[in-house]
Amino acid sequence: MLEEDIDKIFVKYVKEYQDINGTYVHVYEKPPTALEFLRTSVHPNRPAIIKGGFEHWPARTKWTNDYLRSKMGETVVTVAGKSTPNGYADAVTYDPVTDKEYFTMPHEEKMTFNSFIDLIEGKAVSANANYISLQNGSLPTEYSAIEKDVNQDIDWCNGALGKQPDAVNFWFGDDKSATSLHKDPYENCYAVIRGQKTFILYPPTEYYCMHESLYQNAIYVPNETTQKLELSPLESSTPWIPVNPLYPDFTKYPKFMHACPITVTVKEGEMLYLPALWFHQVMQKGDEGVIAVNYWYDMEYTNSLFPTMGLFRRLITGSMEGNRELLVDEEDSD
Amino acid sequence: MLEEDIDKIFVKYVKEYQDINGTYVHVYEKPPTALEFLRTSVHPNRPAIIKGGFEHWPARTKWTNDYLRSKMGETVVTVAGKSTPNGYADAVTYDPVTDKEYFTMPHEEKMTFNSFIDLIEGKAVSANANYISLQNGSLPTEYSAIEKDVNQDIDWCNGALGKQPDAVNFWFGDDKSATSLHKDPYENCYAVIRGQKTFILYPPTEYYCMHESLYQNAIYVPNETTQKLELSPLESSTPWIPVNPLYPDFTKYPKFMHACPITVTVKEGEMLYLPALWFHQVMQKGDEGVIAVNYWYDMEYTNSLFPTMGLFRRLITGSMEGNRELLVDEEDSD
Repeated sequence: MLEEDIDKIFVKYVKEYQDINGTYVHVYEKPPTALEFLRTSVHPNRPAIIKGGFEHWPARTKWTNDYLRSKMGETVVTVAGKSTPNGYADAVTYDPVTDKEYFTMPHEEKMTFNSFIDLIEGKAVSANANYISLQNGSLPTEYSAIEKDVNQDIDWCNGALGKQPDAVNFWFGDDKSATSLHKDPYENCYAVIRGQKTFILYPPTEYYCMHESLYQNAIYVPNETTQKLELSPLESSTPWIPVNPLYPDFTKYPKFMHACPITVTVKEGEMLYLPALWFHQVMQKGDEGVIAVNYWYDMEYTNSLFPTMGLFRRLITGSMEGNRELLVDEEDSD
Repeated sequence: MLEEDIDKIFVKYVKEYQDINGTYVHVYEKPPTALEFLRTSVHPNRPAIIKGGFEHWPARTKWTNDYLRSKMGETVVTVAGKSTPNGYADAVTYDPVTDKEYFTMPHEEKMTFNSFIDLIEGKAVSANANYISLQNGSLPTEYSAIEKDVNQDIDWCNGALGKQPDAVNFWFGDDKSATSLHKDPYENCYAVIRGQKTFILYPPTEYYCMHESLYQNAIYVPNETTQKLELSPLESSTPWIPVNPLYPDFTKYPKFMHACPITVTVKEGEMLYLPALWFHQVMQKGDEGVIAVNYWYDMEYTNSLFPTMGLFRRLITGSMEGNRELLVDEEDSD
């Protein structure tokens, strides 16, 4: 089969899914029942906005910067740092020094929570974009002092998926911080506590359009003299999506023309259900920082979605690597 | 990309799904709740056996041949006839006269219900396999006289899928009648009232193994002199699976070696949940005929399973035809 036939077949597939689903995002005016959520959103693998349902969380009224300072103050936290103007965390970045593109990982800095708030409030100056975005279940660990201000899980989501969340993460950043287009092997309930987040979403069927490719890794390291973050190449590599949907380069990434974005803004007091394996890029906006808490639930591995994404990767990139690197970084597969 | 690379990639996909899921079939010891059924079976798109739940249906005790004669007697019903020894309905059949394989459709005969029972009981002789297997919602139409002896829908299935059944069908046949390997774009709850049915099942991920191909249609027509059914070729054609999993010809159909059958026997008083787009072949066994009632619910078209099957068809057969012919026979697509 010719490459152009495979291209034609995938374009038809992308369009067929778009024709069936359009850019519809279901809005729940109140929290759904477990059955309603599973039937309307999880089983169809479609995003949704849930309005309300966490008005009663102490976080919603308490989480001012002053309150957070009083609770977290001198606690040391992990902050992801990226050199500006490009504030993307975990993204494909062109390095003018080596004239090469890398998958760049942030410099993880330890600082007191007070120091981080100083940066957010402009009381201290940083040449970098700083983002609290550790995704290893940060709420009950680094943020245990404020953990009780939010629910430990989402009851209707537990019921729909038949499990507890695998990780609950605390996010705090400003409009300088964004994430680049990627997907996660998790069902995600994303609750915005302060400010607003805008998600640009693409369904898993649009993998073909994403131009995913293998990039050598590099990590931001502070220059010992200037403290400015500089890229330091590593031995390993990561498959990643190089396209920025805000400024897509269609000459370089022509397949991205077939992708159809679904843009959703999640306001304070709202939750986004971001289905497993959906591609997403996230921006944020809000005075004195944007705060969110997200609940990651293991995705369902017994239906065909997960292996099908591995199939697409193999067919489209020509690599025999499947999905395993989504789960286990740097594992070699045959 | 070379054909052999595409083959290698699909074999890996088939195996990955098999590795994750094995041949497990969930057994519910009692009817599940809607939430449990949706979470455990429909969302993962995995078959299940439901034990009990329709003990109270009058059909379970009443549906003897005598009772059915008393209710249906001289009512004219539609019976699918196939020439023996090959009793497969809707199957790829070799015709020695034209030395060619056809997708053969049964001769649909109208006869009184009493005449059909005479054939099943051996009181009348037929050279053919005869099977009541009309799939257009036969229960509330041809069988309205006995419709009230079973439930009109399955409450936990309605709740899980958020809809009523699209069609309820009445099945009556004997061990001479079987269906060949195929799939349906429906969620299927299949209740065995009398006798037992054995299903050989394959997940949609094994489309690659099925050697689906386009066959010219032919229909069985009774010879005017002998009344024996003979094949009569038609102009149209149908994509169908030619492999018989009971006697697979691996020389002719080598990809079928990668398929992994799940064989399930559904006994009297049990129900099979047969998920949408699973390949299945069905055999039956029981004294004086096997009776079942099945509930077809429209499948979910908004997730990626349906378009993905169209993608597979295009990639594997090289045809640009997708899934539409599953829904609308003989429709031309580009």
